[in-house]
Amino acid sequence: MNHRGILLVVSGFAGSGKGTLMKELMRRYDNYAFSVSATTRKPRPGEVHGREYFFMDKDHFERMIENDELLEHACYVGNYYGTPKFYVEEQLAAGKDVILEIETQGALMIKDQYPDSLLLFVMPPSVTELHRRLVERGTETPEVIASRMERGRQEVEEIEKYDFLVVNDNIDECVERLHGTIVSAHYATKRNMETIETIKKEFQEFFE
Amino acid sequence: MNHRGILLVVSGFAGSGKGTLMKELMRRYDNYAFSVSATTRKPRPGEVHGREYFFMDKDHFERMIENDELLEHACYVGNYYGTPKFYVEEQLAAGKDVILEIETQGALMIKDQYPDSLLLFVMPPSVTELHRRLVERGTETPEVIASRMERGRQEVEEIEKYDFLVVNDNIDECVERLHGTIVSAHYATKRNMETIETIKKEFQEFFE
Repeated sequence: MNHRGILLVVSGFAGSGKGTLMKELMRRYDNYAFSVSATTRKPRPGEVHGREYFFMDKDHFERMIENDELLEHACYVGNYYGTPKFYVEEQLAAGKDVILEIETQGALMIKDQYPDSLLLFVMPPSVTELHRRLVERGTETPEVIASRMERGRQEVEEIEKYDFLVVNDNIDECVERLHGTIVSAHYATKRNMETIETIKKEFQEFFE
Repeated sequence: MNHRGILLVVSGFAGSGKGTLMKELMRRYDNYAFSVSATTRKPRPGEVHGREYFFMDKDHFERMIENDELLEHACYVGNYYGTPKFYVEEQLAAGKDVILEIETQGALMIKDQYPDSLLLFVMPPSVTELHRRLVERGTETPEVIASRMERGRQEVEEIEKYDFLVVNDNIDECVERLHGTIVSAHYATKRNMETIETIKKEFQEFFE
């Protein structure tokens, strides 16, 4: 069967708990690698190059854009942030399933570039529960919460373009559900064309 | 999430061990139902109507063909054999994942009628191993074995039309792999359009 990793694109409403789920997935299983972003912002104390971010200057980053070396990129508050292809490619080749946590628009762009990527959408059990979680966090103003709910309303229109939909009603079960779905994705025929070619060749040789 | 069962179409070369796998899947998990075929042949001692087969006369069977009540059917040695839709539909509605063990040509016809069905192909680890298993059975003549190998060579051309490919290198692991793949298939967005509609409606109501 195939030994190359799968590019996992994970999205979900703010408050769906996808950050916690990803951390737990990484903690429990060793087949995952978290995509490390590149940025032009300065490292903060404790941040390590290649762990939190690949830190680089503006010239370097812009050269990467020109050379099509980023899966996607954006500019926030005067700094660039982006996903370098080299890291993703390196991890996939090493057989790691690479997790990219990204919003819906970027996710669909990545699906175009990597048709073999697996798009996973994490949902809260209900909209009421989503709102409750955002309020309970206690870290955001009512305005921010309202804008996140509005954002969710827009994102919901894109869910059917994802491959799988996982409801986060219980962290533990949801992690196992995600992991099971990712493991199974490795058995999809489209990811095993080499195995099929090998067996075709073996039949050929058998009859020679 | 969706509560309707999935129609599972399972194929594999003679000697791939799919019969044993299916029995083991049924024994370990209670979400499966095995499709029961209809036939015009007489029941043998010990065979029970509705368990081994739905036994019926020729008129009844031909009326089912005319009324499009069979998923597929064929005639062997003067008797009809076919898959009644009513049983499959009843089990799917009850939330059972219905197993249909069928050869490649029939499988692809079913995929056309039921686009939501899941096509699984069971493979031996290698062609040499496939041949060894057929020989070791000791129940078939060299001619029959040769024709089964030839059949395999033709079937291999259809594998890429299947959704998943599972290598039967170890019965125990293969059963778990199959089960995991089927469980995950329930989370595919295309099988959860109702859940997506519900969450859209909830967002709508939230902003009213």
